[in-house]
Amino acid sequence: MTRYQALAAEIADSIRTGVLHPGDRLPSVRQARASRGVSPSTVFQAYYLLEAQGLIRARERSGYYVAEGARQLPPEPEAASQPEDDAVPLDVSEHVFEILESTMVRDVVPLGSAFPSPLLFPLARLGRIMASSVQNLDPWSTVDDLTPGNARLRRQIALRYLADGVQVHTDEIVITNGALEALNLCLASVTRPGDAVLIESPTFYAALQALERLGLEAIEVPTHPREGMALDALERAIQRHRPKACWLMTNFQNPLGSLMPDAKKKALVELLARHQVPLIEDDVYGELYFDDKRPLPAKAFDTQGLVMHCSSFSKCLAPGYRIGWAAPGRFTRAVARAKLTTTLGASAPTQNGLATYLEKGGFDKHLRKLRRALAGQQTLLAQAIAEHFPPGTRATRPAGGYFLWVEMPGHVDALEVHRQALAQGISVAPGPIFSAQRGFTNCLRLNYGHPWDERAEQAIATLGRIASRRPGAA
Amino acid sequence: MTRYQALAAEIADSIRTGVLHPGDRLPSVRQARASRGVSPSTVFQAYYLLEAQGLIRARERSGYYVAEGARQLPPEPEAASQPEDDAVPLDVSEHVFEILESTMVRDVVPLGSAFPSPLLFPLARLGRIMASSVQNLDPWSTVDDLTPGNARLRRQIALRYLADGVQVHTDEIVITNGALEALNLCLASVTRPGDAVLIESPTFYAALQALERLGLEAIEVPTHPREGMALDALERAIQRHRPKACWLMTNFQNPLGSLMPDAKKKALVELLARHQVPLIEDDVYGELYFDDKRPLPAKAFDTQGLVMHCSSFSKCLAPGYRIGWAAPGRFTRAVARAKLTTTLGASAPTQNGLATYLEKGGFDKHLRKLRRALAGQQTLLAQAIAEHFPPGTRATRPAGGYFLWVEMPGHVDALEVHRQALAQGISVAPGPIFSAQRGFTNCLRLNYGHPWDERAEQAIATLGRIASRRPGAA
Repeated sequence: MTRYQALAAEIADSIRTGVLHPGDRLPSVRQARASRGVSPSTVFQAYYLLEAQGLIRARERSGYYVAEGARQLPPEPEAASQPEDDAVPLDVSEHVFEILESTMVRDVVPLGSAFPSPLLFPLARLGRIMASSVQNLDPWSTVDDLTPGNARLRRQIALRYLADGVQVHTDEIVITNGALEALNLCLASVTRPGDAVLIESPTFYAALQALERLGLEAIEVPTHPREGMALDALERAIQRHRPKACWLMTNFQNPLGSLMPDAKKKALVELLARHQVPLIEDDVYGELYFDDKRPLPAKAFDTQGLVMHCSSFSKCLAPGYRIGWAAPGRFTRAVARAKLTTTLGASAPTQNGLATYLEKGGFDKHLRKLRRALAGQQTLLAQAIAEHFPPGTRATRPAGGYFLWVEMPGHVDALEVHRQALAQGISVAPGPIFSAQRGFTNCLRLNYGHPWDERAEQAIATLGRIASRRPGAA
Repeated sequence: MTRYQALAAEIADSIRTGVLHPGDRLPSVRQARASRGVSPSTVFQAYYLLEAQGLIRARERSGYYVAEGARQLPPEPEAASQPEDDAVPLDVSEHVFEILESTMVRDVVPLGSAFPSPLLFPLARLGRIMASSVQNLDPWSTVDDLTPGNARLRRQIALRYLADGVQVHTDEIVITNGALEALNLCLASVTRPGDAVLIESPTFYAALQALERLGLEAIEVPTHPREGMALDALERAIQRHRPKACWLMTNFQNPLGSLMPDAKKKALVELLARHQVPLIEDDVYGELYFDDKRPLPAKAFDTQGLVMHCSSFSKCLAPGYRIGWAAPGRFTRAVARAKLTTTLGASAPTQNGLATYLEKGGFDKHLRKLRRALAGQQTLLAQAIAEHFPPGTRATRPAGGYFLWVEMPGHVDALEVHRQALAQGISVAPGPIFSAQRGFTNCLRLNYGHPWDERAEQAIATLGRIASRRPGAA
């Protein structure tokens, strides 16, 4: 933690525990500097962070004040999950598909959606750049940009890895139709039907669907809502199940929002390397951090080419463009060939347009704005949960991404909440869809990737009422 | 056959058998009309077709003449293939991938390429329309256009089916990342590892790769170079192997160029329906016909929803855009879900741009030009083969598409021809890559989808020299 993060965390704590009350004035920069012996810029950065989190507000010419409602954040869940240490038959049922499809309907309040609002993205500027790029498209790029993909785009991606301190060569990058294809290709490249694969608990449902499609066994590993997969449990699962791959999200995991600390990432990579288990790392939310620096991927600690890093532009720049990539280490050739024989390549004009956008610059400026918006929306959602959900409800406070995970009291049936909410035009993602074992029956994944408004506030109030009904009272 | 086709075929025969010589003047329209009792427009159409085929040439104000070199066309292969009626282990080796990759290098003479020249497509106009479309992109289309795909584009595709007399409703159409993804999704939706699948002999190598990837057994069925898969052999194979699917190309098959007659297509669909075997119909070349009417797909005869029709814009309008589709009959839901869980959707700006292009019109005008170009290039390639390849060489005369199939004398080793040609900067697609049984050792697939020029002529001369060497003489 940097100095300003420590200061911000300390002040946030004071607010949440009631030492500071809504409306209280925070120390001026001069006072804080004097009393804590930190630089003015540290104080400014801490206050900006707290403001982005919705905990404090600036009033013109009079300094910073604790925001109204800032105290009401739900407590965080503390315990790691405890899935059965056995494969259960994978059967992503019709029902689950229906739930997922219900979250894609336009008129529903999209708390269950997998996507952030497209209005948060620079689609107008992207469109202008795409427009110019597509009119200058080299006809031969329609062949040249097939797998492994457009050379300029792959170079831009490699440059971003470099800036983040991760060694990935342009030649390792395979452009895909979004991260989902990258993940599926990586999984197919290291497994055969019947193999065991380790996943988080809860896990992104697409992992369950991919495992089922490929005839693989899902072993769910205990996962902590703040720090991700438990490494001791992971090691036991490796020894017991001899898995052919481990698939997880290190940064702002879907659905928990957990962020694995760097030291733990390093230990994870070393543990898997000792057992020669490939890691399929889904890092699509890595750019959506609320702190000051992009969290490293596990890939940064890979020395053996065993980490297959997958990401995309769909969540951070260009939703619907369907451009992602894999950096699959020693499996690069296999992944490229799997891509070549299943979908051949990604759209050439789209690849060219994105490459030009990245070359022109402006991506980081957009990202800063996007992160601020998401951080603020998280606070507003969390506050609404604290106000409307029944006592005993807990919610994660992810340091990035656009999902949080709500644990309602144990008797609340998330599938029933989903059904009743949908009847009132509100989607949620109920816990059981995130587990082959259909656990997490009292949990919801909620999306704060949409600008907060009165409709969202009302939807949370409705959800809270549904969740507060006595069991059996329909 | 229409009246003008019959007239054209008759004249072509006279040219090929030497009744008419290069430089001979053809009857004037008035003469032909009088002597044959056909309308002037029939004569005109016949002459246009012969001109497109390179057999005759117009001289200003003096009528039509037999073209120089028009006589030298190689004879056609006549016999259906005779593959072993057994599954052999699928192993699309490293070697095959290297051959395919060699055909994608830009500086090589692309006779082995799978793609037509991008210069034959209206990329400039498409680019202008895409440019305008992407700047007006509805942000919500980034979610709405995910699988099953953009509604306007699916409607345009349904309208084309309607115009061709095929009943496919918009709701049956699933947009994919090119036809290759459509084919793979359809295959995965009706099979499980270990199942048998019937394919042509020779077959498009992507079918072999797909079967291998999914752990399926390939049963190769005898296929005629002009009329496609042999139905009697197909029925025996169904009875013996109880296949879960049949995958084939009815129109301008890759690599043969064969065109299954309509009556045979109907019999094919009825035969498969009797045994409840789904048909995966790859129809990517259907629009590239040289006669006067789009040949029907087998889908046109489907009454049970068993035909999964797959096509794309990659070969006829927008190479590299990676937009295709499936119309999978009763399997539509399964295919859409497989798409949703593997690649989620196709690029929204690309889908929107193509939809707008199709709405604006101009596609058919482009297609007419493209077909004329391909028909002419086929004749030029065939003539060059007749001139330069060793005696005994045969070549198919496809009525569409941009591949022809060359049978060299039995002792010629196509893989050796490939190696020696590549060393001289020429790619070819050698026969053995089109068969799990590695047959067709003396065959080549050659591409005439590139404007004919001196370099191509020289490349065929070089291939002819290589193929004419005595066995063992390196």
